[in-house]
Amino acid sequence: MKHQYLENIPLSKAKTIFHEHLKNAGFSPKTERIKVQDACGRTLAHAVYANICAPHYNASAMDGIAVKASDTFGASERTPVTLKPKAYTVVDTGDPIPEGADAVIMVEDLIDAAGGCFTIISAVRPWQNVRQVGEDLCMGDMIAPTGTVMTPALCGALLAGGVTETEVFKKPLVAIIPTGDEIVAPTACPNEGDIIEFNSTVFRGMLESWGADAEVFPITPDKKDLIRAAAEEALARCDIVLVSAGSSAGRDDYTSEIIASLGRVLVHGIAIKPGKPAVLGEAKGKPIVGLPGYPVSAIVIMDEIVRELVFAAQGKAAPPPEEICGVLSTKLVSSLKYQEYVRVSVGKIGGNWSISPLPRGAGVISSFTKADGILVIDQNTEGVEAGETVTVRLLRPADELEHTLIVTGSHDPLIDEVTDLLQSEGQGFRVCSTHVGSMGAIRAIRAGLAHIGGIHLLDTETGEYNKSYVKNMFPQGGAVIARGVGRVQGLMVKKGNPCGIKTFADVARVRYVNRQRGAGTRILCDYLMEKNGLSPEQIDGYYNEEFTHTAVAALIAAGNADTGLGIFSAAKIYDLDFVPICTETYEFLVNEAYCEDPMVQEFLKALHSEKCKNRLLEMGGYLLED
Amino acid sequence: MKHQYLENIPLSKAKTIFHEHLKNAGFSPKTERIKVQDACGRTLAHAVYANICAPHYNASAMDGIAVKASDTFGASERTPVTLKPKAYTVVDTGDPIPEGADAVIMVEDLIDAAGGCFTIISAVRPWQNVRQVGEDLCMGDMIAPTGTVMTPALCGALLAGGVTETEVFKKPLVAIIPTGDEIVAPTACPNEGDIIEFNSTVFRGMLESWGADAEVFPITPDKKDLIRAAAEEALARCDIVLVSAGSSAGRDDYTSEIIASLGRVLVHGIAIKPGKPAVLGEAKGKPIVGLPGYPVSAIVIMDEIVRELVFAAQGKAAPPPEEICGVLSTKLVSSLKYQEYVRVSVGKIGGNWSISPLPRGAGVISSFTKADGILVIDQNTEGVEAGETVTVRLLRPADELEHTLIVTGSHDPLIDEVTDLLQSEGQGFRVCSTHVGSMGAIRAIRAGLAHIGGIHLLDTETGEYNKSYVKNMFPQGGAVIARGVGRVQGLMVKKGNPCGIKTFADVARVRYVNRQRGAGTRILCDYLMEKNGLSPEQIDGYYNEEFTHTAVAALIAAGNADTGLGIFSAAKIYDLDFVPICTETYEFLVNEAYCEDPMVQEFLKALHSEKCKNRLLEMGGYLLED
Repeated sequence: MKHQYLENIPLSKAKTIFHEHLKNAGFSPKTERIKVQDACGRTLAHAVYANICAPHYNASAMDGIAVKASDTFGASERTPVTLKPKAYTVVDTGDPIPEGADAVIMVEDLIDAAGGCFTIISAVRPWQNVRQVGEDLCMGDMIAPTGTVMTPALCGALLAGGVTETEVFKKPLVAIIPTGDEIVAPTACPNEGDIIEFNSTVFRGMLESWGADAEVFPITPDKKDLIRAAAEEALARCDIVLVSAGSSAGRDDYTSEIIASLGRVLVHGIAIKPGKPAVLGEAKGKPIVGLPGYPVSAIVIMDEIVRELVFAAQGKAAPPPEEICGVLSTKLVSSLKYQEYVRVSVGKIGGNWSISPLPRGAGVISSFTKADGILVIDQNTEGVEAGETVTVRLLRPADELEHTLIVTGSHDPLIDEVTDLLQSEGQGFRVCSTHVGSMGAIRAIRAGLAHIGGIHLLDTETGEYNKSYVKNMFPQGGAVIARGVGRVQGLMVKKGNPCGIKTFADVARVRYVNRQRGAGTRILCDYLMEKNGLSPEQIDGYYNEEFTHTAVAALIAAGNADTGLGIFSAAKIYDLDFVPICTETYEFLVNEAYCEDPMVQEFLKALHSEKCKNRLLEMGGYLLED
Repeated sequence: MKHQYLENIPLSKAKTIFHEHLKNAGFSPKTERIKVQDACGRTLAHAVYANICAPHYNASAMDGIAVKASDTFGASERTPVTLKPKAYTVVDTGDPIPEGADAVIMVEDLIDAAGGCFTIISAVRPWQNVRQVGEDLCMGDMIAPTGTVMTPALCGALLAGGVTETEVFKKPLVAIIPTGDEIVAPTACPNEGDIIEFNSTVFRGMLESWGADAEVFPITPDKKDLIRAAAEEALARCDIVLVSAGSSAGRDDYTSEIIASLGRVLVHGIAIKPGKPAVLGEAKGKPIVGLPGYPVSAIVIMDEIVRELVFAAQGKAAPPPEEICGVLSTKLVSSLKYQEYVRVSVGKIGGNWSISPLPRGAGVISSFTKADGILVIDQNTEGVEAGETVTVRLLRPADELEHTLIVTGSHDPLIDEVTDLLQSEGQGFRVCSTHVGSMGAIRAIRAGLAHIGGIHLLDTETGEYNKSYVKNMFPQGGAVIARGVGRVQGLMVKKGNPCGIKTFADVARVRYVNRQRGAGTRILCDYLMEKNGLSPEQIDGYYNEEFTHTAVAALIAAGNADTGLGIFSAAKIYDLDFVPICTETYEFLVNEAYCEDPMVQEFLKALHSEKCKNRLLEMGGYLLED
């Protein structure tokens, strides 16, 4: 089996090699002449000067009559002046001031007199109520320098200055070539082994947000000559070429070889994680980049490498990302081999930014949709301790993150449903929810890192839920419990219950899938095991941990396990059978400091609403008596 | 002459009337089903749930071999395990895990053995190096709630979850109907009385930035039936209708009457300035707005009224504008009749935001291109004192404004040229220049409101420039003079010098145009008058004040005045003759605290560069010996 090690070049060095070579190869911004009406958002390639004055003639600033100012001198209430028809011309706003006149009297200041005359009781100064030539812009004035991004108002100013066309930097055309035998176009029904091609959609969205045009090529299978032909076509027509997947060094990874045959490979392997297996190359004076197949890896390369290229092609530096400083909630370990990019959620609570890491898998696109920011851990660092202050690059505006309700704790789909209710009603805040289990909720509320936490913690001595935990963990107070729901926990099994599971004791003879430590459902599992005299070693899969009810259901449906504890609605989605075990109380722990916070109030209001009740009844498995 | 007074309804009341009526008339967001690949930037009209798990099968996370984990148990350096060909399947990243296997050993960890066998020296856990079903997304999980704006990564997540189409809010189609007999399409050669139609370009740019599509109708002359027909067509096809100009109450102002005939006028006249003559109406359940003809007035109505409509039509609230608090540099007087919108420039210097008002004329589109923010002065306020702290809505990101070199003082086109040189070279900062005259430069540097100021101040006693002023105004130091240029000041006159002007004494017998108080050229004028024994009363136009050399030249070219003092390059642009009067020293005063600031250094470097010298030689009238 072929295996070859990649380079491991530090990012800054990789960039220097790449950019210096591209510069020498002649990669530089192109310009084009376009109509000013279509120039909004584009960047000026040259300074623009006014061709004409605006206004280009002396224009009335009012509706009224144009007069010679000296004819009005001395007019007052005691000595009114009457103007004969020959002494004035009626003008509307914007009309030219006729020869001989040099001021305008507003219609509001005119008193009708006999014979078409007007009487006035105050004088006007020369050029009063007249927009003199050049009031707005003077011919020859620079309206905007090189490099200015055209705003709507600036387009207006250019047109006002008689400029109808302007030279702007061309939007670079970026080719995206998706490759891979297993890659299929987006579908709701992929076959086993099919990988849905969504990376090109992600890349296109990113490129367009940076001002480029993107052309997505057809999916090309892992055939060297076909990929090479696509790359050649792209190099002939486009300004930047991206080859998606095949950038590593496996048996079907051809990108590096193809780039070498078309031009030159400058870097193959960057010391970052995710994102290592990237190829930076040049052919025909154009950059050609091999992107990793894993979406998160590819997004990191897009952000760190391709973004700068796209801006450079438009004659400007990429704007620096917005950053905030906040406190890390959980310890992060990082390798000295790589600079690491960790997706994080960011929330502001009690005036402080709190930063929580999200799952780190390179294949997990959903971690990017939940991410509010990226924490970059330097290559020379072994990690970051919980409580340390870190700098985070934001993926959403800080302003949006400031208005975020932070919900954490045990997973229940009802949190998503409440969030959807709030957003449907256009509440002006965002809900950020993370799954850290019931004990995680208690820790987060204690540390002031969340507003609300979902909990269902069984006191195995009293059989009561939540109360005793809160009493023990908050001896001085500081948290209150808000009414939640009752819900049925049970063992999910394949349709028809092929293993014949009837009670919890049956898990000892099948393959089990568990929840993570700290989850309320894990505590329930441990309680049931104890009650049934079972030890972890007796349960196949006790250490096979998942973070959500649906993840457990998905593995049972896929046959990776035979059973697992969870809630009814998850079983229902996966068409699984459900063996009820017990009823529990799922409630919300609220940080007392934020009980009156309008976001918390709105969340609880939506939770207790009729609409929410109806949704839960539809999902099934909830007890909503009180 | 027809004249009718408009209403003067406070903005908040006008909005309430308008929105309540629109709601009752059925104005609400529309939705459409689109491909997820095209959904970037759009807003979800419903929550989206995963249709399938991602991955939807157990997939290898590595290149290597798929095995049964239990076959590897016990493998160590001392007790290596050898796997026969039947015990493994070669897999690449993304390949399905075959029936019976539940783990993958990485190719890097395989040792080739005889007969197609592999030896390993460490065991793998069940599901190690396998992306289990649902690792990224589980079927039934909510991927995003209603109201979420689709990012590139979110489009990817939807596709990964088997969602290929989604319901989003429709982009509202907004009709823009430009009206007016005097309105002409953009041109570099308008006739007298022609007004170039640029407002629709400004509106389109604004609408598109808010997520709408805009359709610009042909220019319609001031004929009631034609405008009515255009409005009817627009109402039939579009979601929001804007009628540009004709919204006041003059003899050619039909918008209000036409809206009344098609539906209902709700507000005609809002207590804001600029922007008062606006019409808010409804017809066929759609908003129809009459926008004032003056560009700045119209932009205020677009921002205050139309923006909210466009967001409402997309099912969301308009995001609040970014704001900063800063110190106002100059006193502002405001009327109790209106809420006033003042365009301001914003700069950060010495860690503080400084706010300077820009020209307030409603016709001055260029003030919007220079504006960094809007200062809203409440209707109940008579004005704001210099030095007061005010809140400003930003028109550019705060981050961009933080990296701004503030240049003020006397007007000379060389400042624009230096700015253009800096921007051409992609310096990572912006230059904000304002014209407040040489004395204004000294005041601004003293107050710490600018980095650099252009000055040319003649000491009438010594005949020397600048030095004595700086010595007097900065007795304790705090400012240094940077080398500038020599330039020729002279009297600009029409080609052929029809009034026969030879010396400054000749200005007493013609119409003069002056510069504003505090300008170096005004001080020169006063000095020359004194030398020639002339008083202000003897000069026709002494109080006719302009802010720039080109503005003076433009008025002489237009015939509004016969002569004025200014620099050669301004005369050249307007093809005027130039009677040289004296040579002066135009230099730059630098706030000592910022001498080492890289922005200041770069500015001076560009100023003293060969490229700048060549530009100045091309413009003419500069002396560049030293």
